[in-house]
Amino acid sequence: MTASAKDQVVIFDTTLRDGEQSPGASMTLEEKLQVAELLDTMGVNIIEAGFPIASQGDFEAVSEIAKRSQNSIIAGLARAIPADIDRAGEAIKLANQGRIHTFVSTSPIHLQFQMNKTEEQVLEIITKTVTQARNLIDDIEWSAMDATRTSIEYLSRCVEAAINAGATTINLPDTVGYATPAEYQSMFEQIIANVPNSDKAVFSVHCHNDLGLAAANSLAGVAGGARQIECTINGLGERAGNAALEEIVMALRTRSDVLPYECSIDPAYLTRASKLVSAVSSFPVQYNKAIVGKNAFAHESGIHQDGMLKHAETYEIMRPEDVGVRATSLVMGKHSGRHAFKDKLSELGYELGDNALQEAFRRFKDLADRKKNVYDEDIEALVEDQITIESESVKVIALTVIAGTGGPQKAILTMDVNGKHETREATGDGPVDATFNAIKAIWPHDATMSLYQVHAVTEGTDAQAEVSVRLEDNGKIATGKGADTDTLVASARAYVSALNKLAIRRQRQVNVEDAISV
Amino acid sequence: MTASAKDQVVIFDTTLRDGEQSPGASMTLEEKLQVAELLDTMGVNIIEAGFPIASQGDFEAVSEIAKRSQNSIIAGLARAIPADIDRAGEAIKLANQGRIHTFVSTSPIHLQFQMNKTEEQVLEIITKTVTQARNLIDDIEWSAMDATRTSIEYLSRCVEAAINAGATTINLPDTVGYATPAEYQSMFEQIIANVPNSDKAVFSVHCHNDLGLAAANSLAGVAGGARQIECTINGLGERAGNAALEEIVMALRTRSDVLPYECSIDPAYLTRASKLVSAVSSFPVQYNKAIVGKNAFAHESGIHQDGMLKHAETYEIMRPEDVGVRATSLVMGKHSGRHAFKDKLSELGYELGDNALQEAFRRFKDLADRKKNVYDEDIEALVEDQITIESESVKVIALTVIAGTGGPQKAILTMDVNGKHETREATGDGPVDATFNAIKAIWPHDATMSLYQVHAVTEGTDAQAEVSVRLEDNGKIATGKGADTDTLVASARAYVSALNKLAIRRQRQVNVEDAISV
Repeated sequence: MTASAKDQVVIFDTTLRDGEQSPGASMTLEEKLQVAELLDTMGVNIIEAGFPIASQGDFEAVSEIAKRSQNSIIAGLARAIPADIDRAGEAIKLANQGRIHTFVSTSPIHLQFQMNKTEEQVLEIITKTVTQARNLIDDIEWSAMDATRTSIEYLSRCVEAAINAGATTINLPDTVGYATPAEYQSMFEQIIANVPNSDKAVFSVHCHNDLGLAAANSLAGVAGGARQIECTINGLGERAGNAALEEIVMALRTRSDVLPYECSIDPAYLTRASKLVSAVSSFPVQYNKAIVGKNAFAHESGIHQDGMLKHAETYEIMRPEDVGVRATSLVMGKHSGRHAFKDKLSELGYELGDNALQEAFRRFKDLADRKKNVYDEDIEALVEDQITIESESVKVIALTVIAGTGGPQKAILTMDVNGKHETREATGDGPVDATFNAIKAIWPHDATMSLYQVHAVTEGTDAQAEVSVRLEDNGKIATGKGADTDTLVASARAYVSALNKLAIRRQRQVNVEDAISV
Repeated sequence: MTASAKDQVVIFDTTLRDGEQSPGASMTLEEKLQVAELLDTMGVNIIEAGFPIASQGDFEAVSEIAKRSQNSIIAGLARAIPADIDRAGEAIKLANQGRIHTFVSTSPIHLQFQMNKTEEQVLEIITKTVTQARNLIDDIEWSAMDATRTSIEYLSRCVEAAINAGATTINLPDTVGYATPAEYQSMFEQIIANVPNSDKAVFSVHCHNDLGLAAANSLAGVAGGARQIECTINGLGERAGNAALEEIVMALRTRSDVLPYECSIDPAYLTRASKLVSAVSSFPVQYNKAIVGKNAFAHESGIHQDGMLKHAETYEIMRPEDVGVRATSLVMGKHSGRHAFKDKLSELGYELGDNALQEAFRRFKDLADRKKNVYDEDIEALVEDQITIESESVKVIALTVIAGTGGPQKAILTMDVNGKHETREATGDGPVDATFNAIKAIWPHDATMSLYQVHAVTEGTDAQAEVSVRLEDNGKIATGKGADTDTLVASARAYVSALNKLAIRRQRQVNVEDAISV
């Protein structure tokens, strides 16, 4: 089969919807825009940007991404509820190409326990909601939630109804991560064969990784006739997550001999996308994660190293540079000027406004004074930290900590609270606890901390520390990040950033009805 | 098919060999013994305990594990080299049941570039080395390295030769993580059909996760006739790692309707095994890791939560308690006595000698004084930290740090160096840097830090911090861990622990020839 004869498989990225739905992975608008821009640039065909009815924040994110997207189709999710579909249509209105993605459960267990509806009632709902959506826009995706636990016979009727009502893409998700590759492939083969109008829609896979089979199931679905793959960067998503975009793309590319499909993703962006999503979600990528883990291209055993030195292909089926891994390079120092700094930011993919650029440059000079070698990763951490800080009303100004084995540890903290400086002193079990107690003295709150994590962003003992703090308050979760060469300063920033996010979230919370009813 | 008619699939765990081979995952003898004991208890059929010729440390680990194992077969790895096979035979001598696992490359790319041998020469090597091994012990596994890139015709001749020479298990690994499930299944089907004496051996899968397909490939190999699965806890292993034991076990269990095989693993140990391996390897488990990730059973979206409340099975195909997830429980406080503490340690699976118990109790009381709630996880961190500290010749005694935004940060450190106390003061960029500079002042060294990481072990701001530090010196890598409520004290301990490990490793380094030649 020649390259030009290969079938195209479209990539539908749902990092900003299914991924962002992971407990603790919530992103700010600014962060979502950054991710969407990169997805658009790297060649993602469809970006599911959010669930517009879920909150005002989700709505704004979808419509802002719709407005800015260059090449990608922007999809908004909607339950089988008229208000959801209208809201999704509203959110994607300004996109070059928009899509409404509406779904309803089809499995007997969901019909009985969650929806309390009969099969016939659900069929009516499908016709009604897809018709409503199709009256708003031409590009309609319909999903059969929990398809893999639905009978082929009933699922065929649902798919036929959805296509008749105007659905152009039919997604048959493995919602609970239950399928095996053989079953999933067979489901697509049977449905496509059974449904009389199946040639009028593109079929889509959407796999969860509960049993570690998401990538294989996605490819099996394609072998069964699907031509759209729904996936997320780093496999982010509820529970064990979704199929990982980077695994799908590199499997298609590396094994194009037996997987004769083309996709439009430029793999050179995969590493950068992984780092960005890990940073904004505060979900670390495990070292041995396929494609994007720190160790994905690392060899230790003598035998493997020997083989690698003799001929890289003996142990390596992909080259690190294919997926955008670059050698850490020394790039900037204290004598670098504003122009060089701006060029470097562009090279790294950041375009800042004048004020933001000035502030970033100030922080860069400050960093260069304290740190011998400033790497690309340092600059990335600094800019990402700044993007978060800018929208905050409470900020860390100064911190002094006295700590060690003698205890109790003491922190003296000054914060800017809506323009006014306040200073407090506090003790604690350890310097971090003392620092957080000082924050609590200035800004009392009931949130509890469910995650505290520090990474070194670059190598060496003068590396910048990047700290993540996840706070929970009354069911709301927010994760803050801070970067500094001083771990304690980074910790204080991260904690305050999480508090700011919680405060913002409280202000804009909109209630969403839980039940699905039309 | 009734349960009793199901075929048995044996689980071969290689966490201590292929897993430990991951760059940076090296474990101490004490850590390996802990992991092996748990694997034995949870029902692993074969434990690959190490590569005895690789170093004196590897040899000791394999022979000590062989001596202690109750139920598991203990395997030692050997290249196709007489000295390797003798050394492996020596190491497993004291096991109730021992196995020699020997391997040689069979793919044209490995033959040409790595070994510089002809196909006929490799066939001779197989016969010679398997015969040698079989003269030492009856249970012989032979692996065709890079089997998935070898022609079926030549691979069949190799397998036939190995079985003729006495191999009882034939492993056909996907060494580079290259196969798709369909190919891998077909390879087993063809080899088993082609090789005249294939009924005299058990066939085995060994899959790497470079394209995210390791779990699916393993199950596909079983569908093709294999009855042994090689895997690791958390999918630890070189590059993107091996197939994850927990995914294989839970897929077999959850989908026993379409995967009619039995395995002997008790899944209630999976969470504990994951935590232990993560702790001793210092490889964090990503939140969305299937089965054992923090979020593997977490639901956030309103719709899913609604379904869960109505009927758990709507979104959950496994119950958290099946894999040993327990609610974090308040267990001990400052008034708990030595007896209660000892009972708790037993419950958590630790049996300490008198001195170690006394020291652990002292550290527990010290912790209970500083921390309101002492959770199981706190006690686990404390005991695991202590196991590491005991073998060290240099220890952290006292530390005071003055830090904050004012800078430069200052650390005053006292260490015990072979029984003598030394104190130094140092400044640095941040409190961690200052602390590490103070260590360097007392114990000068050239190692560079390639990882610095902090996790909170339990919840709340008075959580114990667990710090991992990875140092590299002249190609050697060592990871140290430290736990304390004070992050800086934990950091100092972790750094010193890594230095101690590097020093031990330098002393016992044994040269291993790199090339494979018989």
